Amino acid sequence: MKVGFIGLGNMGSPMAANLIKGGHEVVVYNRTPAKAQPLVSQGARYAGSLADACRGEVVFTMLSDDNALESVVFRDGGIAHTLARNAIHVSGSTISLALSDRLAQEHAERGQSFVAAPVFGRPEAAAAGKLFVVAAGDNVAVETCMPLFESVGQRTFRFGEKPSSANLVKISGNFLIASVLESLGEVLALVRKGGLDQQQFLDFLTSTLFTAPVYKTYGGLIIEKNFQHVGFAAPLGLKDTRLTLSAGEMFRVPLPLASLLRDRFLALLARGGESLDWSAIAQLAAEDSGQKGSPS
Amino acid sequence: MKVGFIGLGNMGSPMAANLIKGGHEVVVYNRTPAKAQPLVSQGARYAGSLADACRGEVVFTMLSDDNALESVVFRDGGIAHTLARNAIHVSGSTISLALSDRLAQEHAERGQSFVAAPVFGRPEAAAAGKLFVVAAGDNVAVETCMPLFESVGQRTFRFGEKPSSANLVKISGNFLIASVLESLGEVLALVRKGGLDQQQFLDFLTSTLFTAPVYKTYGGLIIEKNFQHVGFAAPLGLKDTRLTLSAGEMFRVPLPLASLLRDRFLALLARGGESLDWSAIAQLAAEDSGQKGSPS
Amino acid sequence: MKVGFIGLGNMGSPMAANLIKGGHEVVVYNRTPAKAQPLVSQGARYAGSLADACRGEVVFTMLSDDNALESVVFRDGGIAHTLARNAIHVSGSTISLALSDRLAQEHAERGQSFVAAPVFGRPEAAAAGKLFVVAAGDNVAVETCMPLFESVGQRTFRFGEKPSSANLVKISGNFLIASVLESLGEVLALVRKGGLDQQQFLDFLTSTLFTAPVYKTYGGLIIEKNFQHVGFAAPLGLKDTRLTLSAGEMFRVPLPLASLLRDRFLALLARGGESLDWSAIAQLAAEDSGQKGSPS
Amino acid sequence: MKVGFIGLGNMGSPMAANLIKGGHEVVVYNRTPAKAQPLVSQGARYAGSLADACRGEVVFTMLSDDNALESVVFRDGGIAHTLARNAIHVSGSTISLALSDRLAQEHAERGQSFVAAPVFGRPEAAAAGKLFVVAAGDNVAVETCMPLFESVGQRTFRFGEKPSSANLVKISGNFLIASVLESLGEVLALVRKGGLDQQQFLDFLTSTLFTAPVYKTYGGLIIEKNFQHVGFAAPLGLKDTRLTLSAGEMFRVPLPLASLLRDRFLALLARGGESLDWSAIAQLAAEDSGQKGSPS
Repeated sequence: MKVGFIGLGNMGSPMAANLIKGGHEVVVYNRTPAKAQPLVSQGARYAGSLADACRGEVVFTMLSDDNALESVVFRDGGIAHTLARNAIHVSGSTISLALSDRLAQEHAERGQSFVAAPVFGRPEAAAAGKLFVVAAGDNVAVETCMPLFESVGQRTFRFGEKPSSANLVKISGNFLIASVLESLGEVLALVRKGGLDQQQFLDFLTSTLFTAPVYKTYGGLIIEKNFQHVGFAAPLGLKDTRLTLSAGEMFRVPLPLASLLRDRFLALLARGGESLDWSAIAQLAAEDSGQKGSPS
Repeated sequence: MKVGFIGLGNMGSPMAANLIKGGHEVVVYNRTPAKAQPLVSQGARYAGSLADACRGEVVFTMLSDDNALESVVFRDGGIAHTLARNAIHVSGSTISLALSDRLAQEHAERGQSFVAAPVFGRPEAAAAGKLFVVAAGDNVAVETCMPLFESVGQRTFRFGEKPSSANLVKISGNFLIASVLESLGEVLALVRKGGLDQQQFLDFLTSTLFTAPVYKTYGGLIIEKNFQHVGFAAPLGLKDTRLTLSAGEMFRVPLPLASLLRDRFLALLARGGESLDWSAIAQLAAEDSGQKGSPS
Repeated sequence: MKVGFIGLGNMGSPMAANLIKGGHEVVVYNRTPAKAQPLVSQGARYAGSLADACRGEVVFTMLSDDNALESVVFRDGGIAHTLARNAIHVSGSTISLALSDRLAQEHAERGQSFVAAPVFGRPEAAAAGKLFVVAAGDNVAVETCMPLFESVGQRTFRFGEKPSSANLVKISGNFLIASVLESLGEVLALVRKGGLDQQQFLDFLTSTLFTAPVYKTYGGLIIEKNFQHVGFAAPLGLKDTRLTLSAGEMFRVPLPLASLLRDRFLALLARGGESLDWSAIAQLAAEDSGQKGSPS
Repeated sequence: MKVGFIGLGNMGSPMAANLIKGGHEVVVYNRTPAKAQPLVSQGARYAGSLADACRGEVVFTMLSDDNALESVVFRDGGIAHTLARNAIHVSGSTISLALSDRLAQEHAERGQSFVAAPVFGRPEAAAAGKLFVVAAGDNVAVETCMPLFESVGQRTFRFGEKPSSANLVKISGNFLIASVLESLGEVLALVRKGGLDQQQFLDFLTSTLFTAPVYKTYGGLIIEKNFQHVGFAAPLGLKDTRLTLSAGEMFRVPLPLASLLRDRFLALLARGGESLDWSAIAQLAAEDSGQKGSPS
């Protein structure tokens, strides 16, 4: 397939690389062109303009937030104005439900299709083609995109024809992961001040009731205070929590745990954690309990 | 081994039964003698008095809370006064760290040993001998008890020589489970009002990032509102959250998520949930969002 | 002075009436023209269009939220496009800091002045000319407007030359009032279930430490469950709390109490309180404690 | 009247002094006898023993917490064992409802009366005889004590015949004050990072909607970070919040704002604030927002 790919960050780049490996004809575009270089050497063509990236059957966007995506879609020469009728815009970004709903409508008015296909997994999983893809949109359009999803992910989950449903699944999943970070942060602060060995406690947890990868992976990061290696940056954690709270407001669902997470992310950023991994919020419970030690 | 067993509730009874099956000589005692009947027919002897249950090498207590355990230990004719020197009191109950520390001291003053050995698992797991046992106390005493632990559980985790460390592990683990209940309650309320199928969403979660049994088991209970089948009663959830908060106060660790859980359990009890399973706190997020439907 | 007045809701109407009484030449405009009738009979002229309301030295807007104000300012024929150079736009609405900053910039680019002048007081205070006005903006422009502020309020507080400072004061003040609602809601639920007479307790409070009007006024409303008489509607309470949280996010200030309020307002709206006064959030603590009784 | 007075801390000492000034015959007792010296020079007699302080018509206790009061009442030679039949024990301490209920019962069984009479006011108010006294207990006993209350306070509020009702009023009032501390802490952190002058903002508040003394007094302390002058120590703030939460648990009333306060007090103590005034919790919101500056 002929695919445009816009947004070559630490998730977008490995995803585009896997599309190339999957045999697709990929045209890449990025605000900072230098990031396209490695992909060009793997066989991608660099688009001279946004419009140039929109000439295929599908254009894939992987951008950091609502503003970035809105700009790329609606500005002069943007996706909405240049994508062919019947072509498909696949958004892998984590965006608000409101923007997803608006994109669905605006693309439909132009005879284009919109598919939301956010992904789960850290950059390592993206590089390994092991992402989980969550897709929603017009059935025919999603079917058309399945080969692309198979190139970037290990499995695709479909959530119906309303694109924003996939976005809701994505932000809900991230909320659950952040909840695990908070609960681990509190409990590890407690057992440490209570005299236990944190690693022994974590080993117990993850070999009994909490065998899920999130507990193992993040538990280890928290104990080692290994927050400098950024898989998912703290400001994105704040952004996603804000999206969860906005969804809660849209549907009238109070979310006190999400509110707690929001305040944690804000405190993390305010105290100097802008460049840390989002799991650093788990350090705040320890700090509030007077435990010293800046993240390694 | 000659073992006394005091406290034949929905956890104690199957545990005592497994001790009998394990070939131990078991003398059972319960405030309500009728509960001892099934065990007697399986080979236990019924103790005519508390003291009568304390004549073996080990006496095992499985009681509901601090008050119940304190009474059984310290009252006239209680364990502290009748257990032999060098005999061992094993407490499987979920109690406060303060009481555990006091029991360690009081038993030591009488030449007795105290081992804290709380367990993880619902009654079904207790019946199947599949509990996880968390043990702490004098090494020799814990070694002596290992055959008992192997009869009731699938695996024993040791946390050093200070008995209350095992209690800290227990309440910390329960806090983490309750955190999962809250996070699932919020997210399931959100996706439902957002138009998703809750079961499909849960299936996605538990086949990707949240493969741990707690997510599967409790997620299912919450979606079905199956809170009438009580594995662990709501008032015990409140009790354990109180113990977690007390530990936090003892060690000066603020625990905002535990505070949220406390208020959830209180609201559940205040609104009529005394006789429900503790997982019913997950229903409160749905109720706060205006979703009707009493638990089935 | 020649003043346009846009937005004749339950605050705007009495304010415009007081401007007329103050001897100013007032041209009123409202989306629903019928609301202008009483003011016309008091001496106002009805503007045939938005532009017609913008021909004086000052145009005053009193609208419900960011969207309403943005539309009135930026649409074709809106304030930005029709207000004379050197004329002043005074916004009395409670809006976001971001919009206030944008208005300051956009008006400045057109040679117009922007003054933010939100007010404190319920509709009764507006009718009595007893509002507190909080004003910020270019000093000369604020000076020019002082006679208007004196007509609508009992006292004007100035907060410098950056208009959004006045908006920050407004949302901060509303946050404090909502905090009082929450604290009273909790404590009145507690003393009632504890067997005290709520009114006697409130009388004690308001004659000792809590003599401020907010405690007396709102305490009485809460005890009587008198939430049907709407001075300030619940959805506006949610909006203002959202503005407070947004300001907190802009300045990186975690606000856990504001987060709690947000969840309370959402729960109130989700449970059917759309048309109640915002003080009805104080009823939620009672409901969570199992106290029955729908608001009168 | 012949009055014993037990507990000469920073509240008890000025209260006892005012009883002496009021013409009563006062016998004082304190664990640390040195604290009695100033009172003896003002005309008090020093009791050689607890029992010696219990020979009058009334014994007044002003102690720091449940444990201290329990010990003084129930130990050998304590109040319960030495107070005459028909004599009155007045407790001014802030204690749990459970202990108050128990004291009412135990004294009644001995033919003694128990009156709970906690007070509102900081040490300066105690010295000036300006406390507010909240009294509950047997009507005759309370009447008998009125001259004492008039000596220590400016006004006495009566809350019926169940002593613990007065304790409930006291902890409820303290909860409301602590709520003001939290709300001021958050809002002052916000306006400061938003570029406002904190004092100007506070002046606005306290001359409009928030005229109550608590806002003026504590607002000033918070802005000046004047937490070293201790009117009411931080650990007592934690204690009182715990009492409020316990009352909430007793009556099944979730109190999310009290839960937030609890975590604030714990964080304050954990971070080194043991010896500060309780108003220092208001500094935590500023710290969480990255504002530096240790309390003066």
